[in-house]
Amino acid sequence: MMQIAILGFGVVGSGTAEVLTENKKLITAHCGEEVSVKYILDLREFPDHPLGDRVVHDINVILNDPEVVLVAEMMGGSHPAYEFTSAALKAGKHVVTSNKEVVANYGVELLTLARENHVRYLFEASVGGGIPIIRPMQTDLASNEIIAVSGILNGTTNFILTKMKNEGAEFADVLKQAQAMGYAEANPAADVEGLDAARKIVILAALAYGVLIDPKTIPTEGITKITGLHTATADKLGCAVKLIGHTERIDGKIYAAVSPYLVPASNPISHVDDVFNGILVDTNMLGRALFYGAGAGKLPTASAVVADIIDILSHRAEERKLPDWKNAAPADIADKADYICRRCYLIEGCPQCAAKAKAALGTEICEFVEDGKFAVVSREMSEKEATAALASIGLQAVFCLPVLD
Amino acid sequence: MMQIAILGFGVVGSGTAEVLTENKKLITAHCGEEVSVKYILDLREFPDHPLGDRVVHDINVILNDPEVVLVAEMMGGSHPAYEFTSAALKAGKHVVTSNKEVVANYGVELLTLARENHVRYLFEASVGGGIPIIRPMQTDLASNEIIAVSGILNGTTNFILTKMKNEGAEFADVLKQAQAMGYAEANPAADVEGLDAARKIVILAALAYGVLIDPKTIPTEGITKITGLHTATADKLGCAVKLIGHTERIDGKIYAAVSPYLVPASNPISHVDDVFNGILVDTNMLGRALFYGAGAGKLPTASAVVADIIDILSHRAEERKLPDWKNAAPADIADKADYICRRCYLIEGCPQCAAKAKAALGTEICEFVEDGKFAVVSREMSEKEATAALASIGLQAVFCLPVLD
Repeated sequence: MMQIAILGFGVVGSGTAEVLTENKKLITAHCGEEVSVKYILDLREFPDHPLGDRVVHDINVILNDPEVVLVAEMMGGSHPAYEFTSAALKAGKHVVTSNKEVVANYGVELLTLARENHVRYLFEASVGGGIPIIRPMQTDLASNEIIAVSGILNGTTNFILTKMKNEGAEFADVLKQAQAMGYAEANPAADVEGLDAARKIVILAALAYGVLIDPKTIPTEGITKITGLHTATADKLGCAVKLIGHTERIDGKIYAAVSPYLVPASNPISHVDDVFNGILVDTNMLGRALFYGAGAGKLPTASAVVADIIDILSHRAEERKLPDWKNAAPADIADKADYICRRCYLIEGCPQCAAKAKAALGTEICEFVEDGKFAVVSREMSEKEATAALASIGLQAVFCLPVLD
Repeated sequence: MMQIAILGFGVVGSGTAEVLTENKKLITAHCGEEVSVKYILDLREFPDHPLGDRVVHDINVILNDPEVVLVAEMMGGSHPAYEFTSAALKAGKHVVTSNKEVVANYGVELLTLARENHVRYLFEASVGGGIPIIRPMQTDLASNEIIAVSGILNGTTNFILTKMKNEGAEFADVLKQAQAMGYAEANPAADVEGLDAARKIVILAALAYGVLIDPKTIPTEGITKITGLHTATADKLGCAVKLIGHTERIDGKIYAAVSPYLVPASNPISHVDDVFNGILVDTNMLGRALFYGAGAGKLPTASAVVADIIDILSHRAEERKLPDWKNAAPADIADKADYICRRCYLIEGCPQCAAKAKAALGTEICEFVEDGKFAVVSREMSEKEATAALASIGLQAVFCLPVLD
């Protein structure tokens, strides 16, 4: 019998207990022994839950119990999750987490602490919910240089964008529906403003490049300004509007950002709809791989937490390498102005303006979305170059969306 | 410096040497030491290759060299690859392979040999080329019961089906094009008859259920009988025709088969086109995950071989659990007749016949593909039940395709 503790008995915490119970037989087979939840740390009581008698309110009970070999942190938020994680690692306990905020903000420090204390800190559930992505990037893709990672990393915004596309609806209306259906929170800012996706893309960037960037500092644009005109433009060009977290290296520096993109139908991520997530990894040998699945939700996310628990408990005797990250210095971070891609500009103008815009942006791709409004897709260039090219012919864009090829 | 040997210097073998050279810096960082190819076993000489001086023709040189800790087998075919693998494991050398034929035919025996000799036998490259699937199924999905696995596992046939769909062309013509472009072999039987996919699906079934089935015994149907009428039918129903390897449990037994399916656009695998592969895994906690990427090709497949090499060499001190498979007994294998799914029947008949067929198959989904030919999609039922239902109203199908939901 191996004893673990669960910190935070909310959606993912209680889901983790459920996965451990539902799939006990196979989990025991993997680990060689039964995995038992000895403590659940929460401010609340759960008198009606079968594990209600495991609830404690003092982290020290867990930290001081040598029987507890692993702590699963699913509290959400930075504090006190960070302090509890730190204390558990110092107490020589392995930690697994679904908490992207803690990993994105304190990952370097916590991985170092884990290393110093000869335990592991795993966080498969922090990005893409239940989708295998963290471990595959560290193992299966270990033979590849990572060229770029581009992902639909937030289910709420993808649900909203999918409904806007399918129903021709506007953002505010669909947000209300999503809230009524429980797919968006009463305060949806972290999702719709792109902050959740920003935390996830900095974790993926750290996995790819070994450098962890403060998520609050990366260019982050959500979907609150997306209108029916954006969706109509995408449709006209055979694309979908998707909120994309993207990272790549530019001249040895790391670029990471979150913003809405146009994604052509030829890109497999364009078909990732509703609350699903999809993550593209471009590599120098394998080429492009896509990982797709449930990016959130109780049992999917819990299944990733339990996969980490199994990974640790089935190899307890071994010391395993942990990712060696460093915190980003300003010199590590590429400027947004240097990010080269194709971009779609929606411009008010006549057919002659459209012809001029095509020439200025070096492209043949141009469609009138409605009378007097055309969408033109530039060749690969920096935003500055494109804006200057348009300004030189007296044109100004209503909006601009990068294109994910 | 860690010394390895490459068996077979064809496409994947030479690709493996290329990945080891191209990405040497990061591979060395992962393994802690440089990985060096000490020997290449091949019948041929490669005087112009930078590693031409490593070529040997006698496996015993490799087996008897204690410096060689790992053998990468990429010979293709069962013999002598099986014998060499077996001998290498007995000599206490780790083995990694891209050879699906050997894994599908001798996996149980070779995994047992590896266990007995305290070495590992890894085969990530044997299914899905470079796509991470074997290791994610063993680690990330370890917390889940596997309900089913359904995959586009063969790039050649997917290329042909994609071209048939996009160009309305017939099989024989597209096959000739594929051969001219190097996407299909001069003798394309293993691909177009479904044998290659059969080997891969039995490996995935073994990973999911621990039982390895002889690939020659599973129901296997290729794409040679697919015509423009199939593609037109698929199109009419908003589907694509895809060659699918499928496995699931039926009443405690294991069903595994390869055949063409109709895949609705709502299924993400329907958008996996050209030579790409995509593998859906349905699980009891995570739900559905999709793994997508280059399912074949020199560098993609080699990148998976090298990922296995890194996995082993970066944890050399550890004894790791290997999958514990057994060979299937007849009693382990489910009967095709018990496989329940929706099926599309193309039937010659009038609108009244169509109405009768809908009632008999318990469905509202029915479209005329051309004059006097309608396609009706049954509710979920066994093939026997559906055939009997159609016979009872005097109807017989021109063809039947299962539907992958």
